[in-house]
Amino acid sequence: MLDEFVRREVIKFGDFQLSSGERSPYYVDMRLVLSYPDLLRWVIAKYTNILRDINFDLLVGVATGGIPYASILGFSMYKPIAYVRERAKWYGTKRDIEGAVWEGARAVLIDDVITTGQSVIQAINKLKEVGARVESVVVFLDREQCGAKRVEKETGVPVRPVYKILDILQEIKDLIGEDKYKQIYNYTMSFKC
Amino acid sequence: MLDEFVRREVIKFGDFQLSSGERSPYYVDMRLVLSYPDLLRWVIAKYTNILRDINFDLLVGVATGGIPYASILGFSMYKPIAYVRERAKWYGTKRDIEGAVWEGARAVLIDDVITTGQSVIQAINKLKEVGARVESVVVFLDREQCGAKRVEKETGVPVRPVYKILDILQEIKDLIGEDKYKQIYNYTMSFKC
Repeated sequence: MLDEFVRREVIKFGDFQLSSGERSPYYVDMRLVLSYPDLLRWVIAKYTNILRDINFDLLVGVATGGIPYASILGFSMYKPIAYVRERAKWYGTKRDIEGAVWEGARAVLIDDVITTGQSVIQAINKLKEVGARVESVVVFLDREQCGAKRVEKETGVPVRPVYKILDILQEIKDLIGEDKYKQIYNYTMSFKC
Repeated sequence: MLDEFVRREVIKFGDFQLSSGERSPYYVDMRLVLSYPDLLRWVIAKYTNILRDINFDLLVGVATGGIPYASILGFSMYKPIAYVRERAKWYGTKRDIEGAVWEGARAVLIDDVITTGQSVIQAINKLKEVGARVESVVVFLDREQCGAKRVEKETGVPVRPVYKILDILQEIKDLIGEDKYKQIYNYTMSFKC
């Protein structure tokens, strides 16, 4: 199925600017997965396999990339769903957490991709402020740019990815060719975690 | 089930500021529905009933309130999902539409609540710019503040709500009492559409 990620350009090659400000020779567009019901089913099943091993009371999406995945997973696993905004809205309930989060709730944070871990750390801190226990962060892709280690070091919360980029890279090596493989491999290895 | 909306404070009474800037004596927090798997199932079934009557190729959520609903509906109906951001992000793909939207695609826009219709009109225009045909807007709640009429007049796209506020009000009248009923009734009737 990862070959389809390349063919359908969920994994893109070029020169991209990440939310962290850094440039990258590749970009994994998990929003595009939403456009393909077959890919989406497969991705949801992968997340579900990881979630089955965790005891939790609610799923919390990190805005905006994590919201569709947290929503579908919560719906299909019959669990409460919430999400953390990037910034509090100025109208209505004025909260930066949407949905109910209660004291002692065992929360799992859902995001699509982890890079530096910055937005995940912010989300964990917001959840802790309202008394939740964050059991784990589950992401589809760990770009292996020290984000997971940073989250674990700064918050004590483990990060569980469905895939790490070097594992994906290994699987799609024949399809993308030696040059792209090496470029992304070297880029990834340049981050010393 | 609407009684549960009151009991679980999905429908709140007080003094709220809406995204349009106006004040309102009530607020319907559709994000809170996500916290209750039983309410969520019921709401999704209501949306689904309306969508079954429409021919469409993809569901497009309006950020952020419409994203969870568009995602769950697209997943359960095996249809492509996309969403329209409030503003374009400055990194990655830099788009204000996430997911694939193609020339001639028959799109249905999904939002939770319609008030003035402003954000829906913006979303329709963005979709039209990329060549989509917007067949319909489906929302859970029409607050009956002229939004639906405005959307239809400015864009020609019909708005189909699961509920209009005055219908909800009628159903929960005994539960909320005469005073709250009258207050919201008069507030709603003050909008001359």
